[in-house]
Amino acid sequence: MSIEAEAVELANHELYAAVEAADLDRMAEVWLDGPHAETVVCVHPGWPAIQGREEVLRSWTAIMANTPYIQFFLTDVEVEVVGEIAVVTCAENILTGMGESALAGGRAVATNVFRHTASGWRLWIHHASPVITPAEGDDSS
Amino acid sequence: MSIEAEAVELANHELYAAVEAADLDRMAEVWLDGPHAETVVCVHPGWPAIQGREEVLRSWTAIMANTPYIQFFLTDVEVEVVGEIAVVTCAENILTGMGESALAGGRAVATNVFRHTASGWRLWIHHASPVITPAEGDDSS
Repeated sequence: MSIEAEAVELANHELYAAVEAADLDRMAEVWLDGPHAETVVCVHPGWPAIQGREEVLRSWTAIMANTPYIQFFLTDVEVEVVGEIAVVTCAENILTGMGESALAGGRAVATNVFRHTASGWRLWIHHASPVITPAEGDDSS
Repeated sequence: MSIEAEAVELANHELYAAVEAADLDRMAEVWLDGPHAETVVCVHPGWPAIQGREEVLRSWTAIMANTPYIQFFLTDVEVEVVGEIAVVTCAENILTGMGESALAGGRAVATNVFRHTASGWRLWIHHASPVITPAEGDDSS
């Protein structure tokens, strides 16, 4: 993997680390700022698109405030760098806690597009969608 | 809108026109070919990611064979061009026919990433996801 691709993968990891830590300051560092801030787009699983850096950060504030515990296990991470644009596709294997000791698992697929800036790779577009898999083995109880 | 952005919007329109026409040859022209064909990614609503040009075209063949009628009305189309990469985000308002006169409506949101090639803008990544909206007005019958 090239040094640029490694830097992109690190930026991608930081997105999920910021959500896990429910740290809005870190989230603000992850996302693109400056002249293209209004073109930032975020799609949460099952949601319509949210456009604009401020609106996107506000949505994350709401999600983080309503998620006592969340952990991401990323698989199938693919990184492609073309000039000042980088695209990461990955599967998000998600473990969430809704309070007390109840845990729920979920699976989503994400496309994350980064732009190279003077302050490194910043997230421009995040599109996550639910993976609706048919029950395997039909052993649902 | 710049001439490049117009060319990208036309390429984006061609994706949906090819699906509506159930024309696999047109679909093959829409998608990226050549040295980066293996990095092509497609996410159908609710599906995991499919990687590789051949696998992606095969999935469309299956979808088109099982969809007697489909029509897309695109809204909120945003086009951004950065070097040889272009990103289109849009809302897909979908009308499908399942046979006889039964029609169903649906809503999805899509991120489409194009790459510029010697043969114009070709689709590199298509990520579509279902928009699960709460019922408005609760007048479902």
